Amino acid sequence: MTSKYAKYIPTAIIIILAAALAAVLLFMYNQPAPQRGIAPNVDVAALEPDSSIWAQNYPNQGTTFAQTTSNNVRTTYGGSENFDKLAVDPNLTILFAGMPFSKGYTEDRGHGNALTDILETARVNEKTPGTCYSCKSANNPGLWTEMGMTAYDATPFADLGQHIDQTIGCANCHDAETMALVVTNPALEEALEAQGKDWRTFTRQEMRTVVCANCHVEYYFQGDGKYLTFPWEQGTQIQNIVAYYNEVGFKDWEYPETGIAMLKAQHPEYELFTAGSTHYAAGVSCADCHMPYTRDGAAKFSDHNVRSPLLQPEKACGACHTEVTYVVERVRTIQDQTNKAMLSAEAALVDSLTAIKAAAADPNANATLLDEARAMHRDAQMYWDFIAAENSMGFHNPEEALRILGEATDMARQAQLKAIQALTPPAQSGSN
Amino acid sequence: MTSKYAKYIPTAIIIILAAALAAVLLFMYNQPAPQRGIAPNVDVAALEPDSSIWAQNYPNQGTTFAQTTSNNVRTTYGGSENFDKLAVDPNLTILFAGMPFSKGYTEDRGHGNALTDILETARVNEKTPGTCYSCKSANNPGLWTEMGMTAYDATPFADLGQHIDQTIGCANCHDAETMALVVTNPALEEALEAQGKDWRTFTRQEMRTVVCANCHVEYYFQGDGKYLTFPWEQGTQIQNIVAYYNEVGFKDWEYPETGIAMLKAQHPEYELFTAGSTHYAAGVSCADCHMPYTRDGAAKFSDHNVRSPLLQPEKACGACHTEVTYVVERVRTIQDQTNKAMLSAEAALVDSLTAIKAAAADPNANATLLDEARAMHRDAQMYWDFIAAENSMGFHNPEEALRILGEATDMARQAQLKAIQALTPPAQSGSN
Repeated sequence: MTSKYAKYIPTAIIIILAAALAAVLLFMYNQPAPQRGIAPNVDVAALEPDSSIWAQNYPNQGTTFAQTTSNNVRTTYGGSENFDKLAVDPNLTILFAGMPFSKGYTEDRGHGNALTDILETARVNEKTPGTCYSCKSANNPGLWTEMGMTAYDATPFADLGQHIDQTIGCANCHDAETMALVVTNPALEEALEAQGKDWRTFTRQEMRTVVCANCHVEYYFQGDGKYLTFPWEQGTQIQNIVAYYNEVGFKDWEYPETGIAMLKAQHPEYELFTAGSTHYAAGVSCADCHMPYTRDGAAKFSDHNVRSPLLQPEKACGACHTEVTYVVERVRTIQDQTNKAMLSAEAALVDSLTAIKAAAADPNANATLLDEARAMHRDAQMYWDFIAAENSMGFHNPEEALRILGEATDMARQAQLKAIQALTPPAQSGSN
Repeated sequence: MTSKYAKYIPTAIIIILAAALAAVLLFMYNQPAPQRGIAPNVDVAALEPDSSIWAQNYPNQGTTFAQTTSNNVRTTYGGSENFDKLAVDPNLTILFAGMPFSKGYTEDRGHGNALTDILETARVNEKTPGTCYSCKSANNPGLWTEMGMTAYDATPFADLGQHIDQTIGCANCHDAETMALVVTNPALEEALEAQGKDWRTFTRQEMRTVVCANCHVEYYFQGDGKYLTFPWEQGTQIQNIVAYYNEVGFKDWEYPETGIAMLKAQHPEYELFTAGSTHYAAGVSCADCHMPYTRDGAAKFSDHNVRSPLLQPEKACGACHTEVTYVVERVRTIQDQTNKAMLSAEAALVDSLTAIKAAAADPNANATLLDEARAMHRDAQMYWDFIAAENSMGFHNPEEALRILGEATDMARQAQLKAIQALTPPAQSGSN
């Protein structure tokens, strides 16, 4: 018996082995592709506006982000409690007379309240353009892709609101598939392109600053279509921005009884921080201080409760600075100095408005001097507002802030002077 | 024989031992007291003015100090080369018109040239008081002890010069016996006492800043006796100093054709640095940056070639900062910003002088407004000069420097305005 089948044994072994090999290869071929990290709990669609879906895959980021809704705390000069800025500084009511900010100007609350707060602000009315939603909702990346920014901006606020049910969220900064940081605001992409920059070539650390520029910038609504535009064509420092606005002849409003074509600054945190500040020059990003790395057990993650670093200086400053008490004291010193310079500029601006008002009311006033006064006041107040509206009381770039406020004061005083000279009869002003 | 003397043996042993003990104790008692460190090569007399004698005991300090004579190098905004500040900034000739600084204003050279340079400056003449030697010579501590500061200051410059043959040297800061840092200038001691401070209680690190205040301060010559006085009675910040000068009614000179009682700032490095600067708040002393620790073989010593830290940033900044290239770039940024703000203030001051000159020349000018303009200009120019004359182009305290320059510009513009208003007929200025 052994002899009869012995000659088939090698063949059988070969067949069995070949079949086994084929089966194993086929099995392997049919395995799903290996994935990096932990498989997600749920699939998140591209541009998904609902952050609670993303949060199922990223619970630490999700729960900390949710704290931006409820956990709104005031700091000495800012924070995220919606206190009334007009009550804190009555000069603002004078400086913004004739425009909505003189009626309602509260400190911004956290990202989670952006949508609620814009719907409740005293500044929104039937003429408000849809563009105002640009920084308020995680629906935006989807809407911009679907409608295009031109149509988005041209839609009235109330109509656009039908499509908006989410506050700021994950989709404003992250790619749903890779979780990479992305520029989602077309206005930012265009502004960067105008400077020859492509954010897709930026490092991750650069992106940790640039994504904040989706919103934390100076911008305006261009033309009748209210097209969201960053005034960065000549650069991002205040002198470049003012030069741009003067060139295109834009105004936010006309100041009552003066004929001044005024500008209102938004929240140029990105521009001030990146204008050569010591932290930016040292390679620090916005997220390093406002979303410091934290831990939940063994998991390390960025704290998505985006807020003032002064509310958790040990984590925010302590990652780099060993003496946290000392650096917090420095922040205080810098902010106090900026605030003082800011109030000096305001006093000069108020005086300038009074003088221009007097000159504008007098038909005999020298028209050339009065126009020069108006132009200087416009620039001066925008310089001041660039620091006053910016959310750091100068800390994002202390020397730049004090430089700008010093120039604002100088220009305001010169505007005041020209307005007074506009009322001086020629014989007198030329008497020496 | 043994039995005959055996009974004396114990007594003899006792006597020998007692004598030996007494001899040893006597020998020890007559030894010189043990000394710490290496015995000096030469004895240095108390208040010894000749630094070359001290240098025999401290050759490293002596040879580096000697470099302050020959090794004078210019930096972007300062350093120790005697360049002509009037040529660099023509505004100075206008701002100091009518007083010696408009004729000769060179950058200070190193400590080793202090005596040579004061004898050669265009500012010294037959009316110059002896007080001008106060910061120029190592003979001073001896002369102050011998004559008292009242007599020293009352002696004419030329007469006092008979007793002065040494430039600044060891005796200006060190006690000859202990080498401890000491306050030698009676004016500094009095100014500290007025604030309830006793320098003898200061730590060594505090002394490494305070001894520089022997000279690097704002001061004036009080009364006919030209008594050297630091205007610190109300504090050491610019607003305290100006308030003091206004209270005592002091003026350095009267500005031509304007009737303005002007003030000239000296070199208030100590006041600016200690007004809450980040380095001072962090416990850094003047010597840490201007006399960094260095080595000669195994010997560690303070570099006595006192000079700009920018001339050796690796040692001066690198002791604390790891990225020296980065911090040097920051210094540049800060100084450029300060310089720009300084030039804005100068433009405002020049405009103010022009306006006040015009008003002062007009007999119909409103006297009250003209006087207000003069008073504001006086303060404004002193604020500006506090930073312009200070040797760091703002770096010793960047935020404070920019604050002061901003206020100087604001006040100068207001002075200009009041002068112009002084020429406006009442009917017109009250027309609204």
